[in-house]
Amino acid sequence: MSGDQERTVRPERLGVIGLGAIGGSLAWQCMRAGVPHVIAHATSAEDVTGAVEAGAVTHVVDTPEDVIAECDLAVLAVPPSATLELLSRLAEPIRAHGVRVTDVCSVKRAVVDRARELDLHSFFVGSHPFCGTHQSGFAGARDDLFRDSIVYVTPVNEGDEISQEIVTFWRDVLHASPVVMPAGPHDEMLAWTSHLPQVVSSALAVALAEGAPDGATYGTGARDTTRLAASNTTMWRDILMLNRSPIEQSLDTFARSVDTLKRALADEDAAAVAQWLDRGAEFRRRLAE
Amino acid sequence: MSGDQERTVRPERLGVIGLGAIGGSLAWQCMRAGVPHVIAHATSAEDVTGAVEAGAVTHVVDTPEDVIAECDLAVLAVPPSATLELLSRLAEPIRAHGVRVTDVCSVKRAVVDRARELDLHSFFVGSHPFCGTHQSGFAGARDDLFRDSIVYVTPVNEGDEISQEIVTFWRDVLHASPVVMPAGPHDEMLAWTSHLPQVVSSALAVALAEGAPDGATYGTGARDTTRLAASNTTMWRDILMLNRSPIEQSLDTFARSVDTLKRALADEDAAAVAQWLDRGAEFRRRLAE
Repeated sequence: MSGDQERTVRPERLGVIGLGAIGGSLAWQCMRAGVPHVIAHATSAEDVTGAVEAGAVTHVVDTPEDVIAECDLAVLAVPPSATLELLSRLAEPIRAHGVRVTDVCSVKRAVVDRARELDLHSFFVGSHPFCGTHQSGFAGARDDLFRDSIVYVTPVNEGDEISQEIVTFWRDVLHASPVVMPAGPHDEMLAWTSHLPQVVSSALAVALAEGAPDGATYGTGARDTTRLAASNTTMWRDILMLNRSPIEQSLDTFARSVDTLKRALADEDAAAVAQWLDRGAEFRRRLAE
Repeated sequence: MSGDQERTVRPERLGVIGLGAIGGSLAWQCMRAGVPHVIAHATSAEDVTGAVEAGAVTHVVDTPEDVIAECDLAVLAVPPSATLELLSRLAEPIRAHGVRVTDVCSVKRAVVDRARELDLHSFFVGSHPFCGTHQSGFAGARDDLFRDSIVYVTPVNEGDEISQEIVTFWRDVLHASPVVMPAGPHDEMLAWTSHLPQVVSSALAVALAEGAPDGATYGTGARDTTRLAASNTTMWRDILMLNRSPIEQSLDTFARSVDTLKRALADEDAAAVAQWLDRGAEFRRRLAE
């Protein structure tokens, strides 16, 4: 194995920008995996303190530019719109230092398009670790979050060499299961598997806030179904705006599903209600737990 | 304490009709609590076998009438429409044997109305243990399901003496937290706290079944949000039909919540998207876990 490959598989100097639940977990798990230097920058003083106290980082620096200047692999772990801004801001230093860069956003088309516009395809590949949490900040970080988790890896151009390097990083350092796919199909799939569930959970929470009796008691069912609503809303605002069209399509299908039930109830058609419930139960039971 | 009160607080002979997740848990937990005779009937051979093998019952009898003939407190633990049928079928034997009876349905108005029509107010009070599970059958039963769980107790008439007896049963034998309330307000509250979350979860599962790409991978978010969709569909068909009007009202509020987001997305209004997400997050975070 060449020295270059070694460096990428297990970076000597990992940079992390953002120390929330995802960035914090990434720094922490890399420390546990024996990465010697984990250099971080975050705007939240609370997250920095949490990460330092947990021993999740070795160095805290003042600016994103300082991270890029001091690492050989950098992970941008901030919400999507901040990721787009960072890519533009850091394009020159990334090229100057020859740093490998990836991100962790749940939307990939906008991020990959930005990297392409900035001619960063040799330095950047998108990542999306599919192990999000509704918790925010370093308080939601874990030192094994990525183990056995799917991580989508989306190249700027098919076949970019850096894709394989980042795949190896996720697999060998973090014990995740990387899956390489283009950004467009990724975003269309995630509109269904992740973004629609978030919207539905938030819509339920908003409806309960508006209509449920004051002081009502909620059981595990309502808690499970609204859990995602507690997620980081800045991140989700960006995701919904940046993946608007696929999400609108999935929402249309969802609205038709609700209408099917409404019609069955209005018609007092118990058989149609049962058929609709059975369709959902069959889908869910196939997912197992 | 009089002999009569003793008998009701800790029945000598408990009858359970239905050995699914709720009836099975109830029989099992009563056995653990030292009830000497737990006499059960269930139409599912699988549930009967499961309950016998777990030691959750002492006697299995052939008919619901046999249960009523042999117990001093009977719990009807079947879906709502079957509960209504059982009440009509068993009204005469219940009166003849002077048995106390309760049920476990998530809709109470229809059940309590039926008991009133059958002039069973001295013998029957409705119960709704608020610890439902998406699991079905005795396979979903637990020997401590009701501990610390809220149980709504809905009298046929305010002040019926049997209410206090059943409250004591839930509290002292099963260590649950009974809350007495009229059936109507119960059903209106549950339309929000339980029935709407079920409908939303099922609607999401149906939408994913119809629109999501084949072979898509789902994370914990989608799994949490669709978990309720796997629930017993016969039971939920009955609940939705019997509590139709309050559920339709809650669904209208939900549909308006979805429309608010759709409009914000169509207008590309990031501030409105954020405001909507914040409203849901604020509600959910107040619930804690």
